[in-house]
Parts: sequence; structure tokens; C-alpha cells
Amino acid sequence: MSESDERAVLDANARFYEAFGRRDLSAMSALWHDTLPVVCIHPGWGALEGRARVLASWRGILANDAAPPIRCLRASVHLLGDVAMVVAHEALGGARLVATNVFARDGSAWRMVLHQAGPLASPEDEDDAPPSDGGMLN
Amino acid sequence: MSESDERAVLDANARFYEAFGRRDLSAMSALWHDTLPVVCIHPGWGALEGRARVLASWRGILANDAAPPIRCLRASVHLLGDVAMVVAHEALGGARLVATNVFARDGSAWRMVLHQAGPLASPEDEDDAPPSDGGMLN
Repeated sequence: MSESDERAVLDANARFYEAFGRRDLSAMSALWHDTLPVVCIHPGWGALEGRARVLASWRGILANDAAPPIRCLRASVHLLGDVAMVVAHEALGGARLVATNVFARDGSAWRMVLHQAGPLASPEDEDDAPPSDGGMLN
Repeated sequence: MSESDERAVLDANARFYEAFGRRDLSAMSALWHDTLPVVCIHPGWGALEGRARVLASWRGILANDAAPPIRCLRASVHLLGDVAMVVAHEALGGARLVATNVFARDGSAWRMVLHQAGPLASPEDEDDAPPSDGGMLN
């Protein structure tokens, strides 16, 4: 992977969390791809497929002043040519989530095509261990 | 998207659930990409990055006779050139999960580079509605 690609993808990932934290729908909208298919899976929700549904969900989420601040605790990048997967942990109030953010190259930019976040059962555990409650499902 | 690509990706997705259901580690291993980076996030777990960690997790899971059978309830494909995202619901015993399975083209085959599954709060809800418990986190 080229270092510049990795940096550009991490920048795009950081912009996602900045837009989220600032409740900036315009920045969030610009971040999502507008020519490729997009998918978003918020924790507990079904999958939202297509830009209109995805952005409608963000409109609701970013309008919610009661939502706790979000922080991206760490992020690692895996490049698949013109698509890149970012794996991150998220701190959302007291909750810990694990998220995948997938970006696709769009000219010189990287734009989001997938966000999926879900609960992390045991944030203190090693990443390759099942949750301590044995709650492994698949 | 070409129909043949869509069919080939859905075939690969079906093979994933067949390998899971038959507890077939060899088929599961063959399904995962072996030249591109791979990531797997089981429900509640942290992210497993890299083929060795991912396959070690499947070795443990497929050896567990107590695990309930899994079914892929529906799957839709979104093509991003040489990468394809599949969104599916999973029935695992009484639990309902939502999963993303990402495949990358490998010659004439499609091989898995990402599996992430998480709980679905309200399987009966419309997919674009938040869970009825208001448990939307992000």
C-alpha cells in the first residue's frame, strides 16, 4: 500500500468522525460517495442501502442534540486497490463500538461507501478473543 | 453491474453460509482471500485483521458443535468494480443479525475480504427505521 493512499484514507476516516462530532450534515453528505452504491448499518438497525436512505438517517442522527460525542479510538487501513477498508473502535459516551468504514477512490479523493458499527462486548479484551460473556454468535 | 458478476458474488456469499452450516473449515478457508488483506468482526468481538487470525477464529467457531444452525435470509449485492459488498440478514437460532460480506475479484472467482455481523434490534421493523427501543448509537 502506498503511504500516500494510506494517509488519504485515514484523512477521509477522520473527516467522517469530525462531521459526526460537529453534527455537520453537509460535510457528512460530501463524504459519502455519490456515484457508487453506499450502505450504512447503524448499531442495531437494519441495513440502509442507497444514498438517499443513508443520508436521511444521518440527517436524523445529526439533528439529535442528545447524542453523546463520538471519538475514533484507533483506525487501521487495508487497501484493496481502489477500495480501502478502515477498522476502528469508537467511543460513544460510555459505549465502545467496533466499526468498519469502507472508502472507494473518486479521482484524487476517497469517499465512503460503507459504514457498519456494532457493539463491542469486552473492550478490554484482546481483539482476537471472544467476548468474556461467551456471547459469540458467529 | 453485470448479471454474471452479481450471480458470481451471490454464489460466493452462499458458499460462505454453506461452509458455516456444514462446519467445513476447508471450504471456509478457501473462500477467504489469500493475497489481499482480510478482516472479520464476529458479533461482540473486536476486529480480527489478517488471514491467520481470521481463520483461527473460524477454526474455533466451526469446531463448536453447540452453535445453532445459521441461515442467510436475504442478500443484496452492490458492486464497486473489483470489490463487491453483500448485505444480508442472518438467522442464528432465535437471533437475527445483519451482516456485511465484502468480496474481491480473484481472477474468475470472488473471495471474501470482510465479514462483519452484528445484532439486529428489531428484525420486524422496516430496514430504514431505528430500533424500537430507541437504542440508536450512531
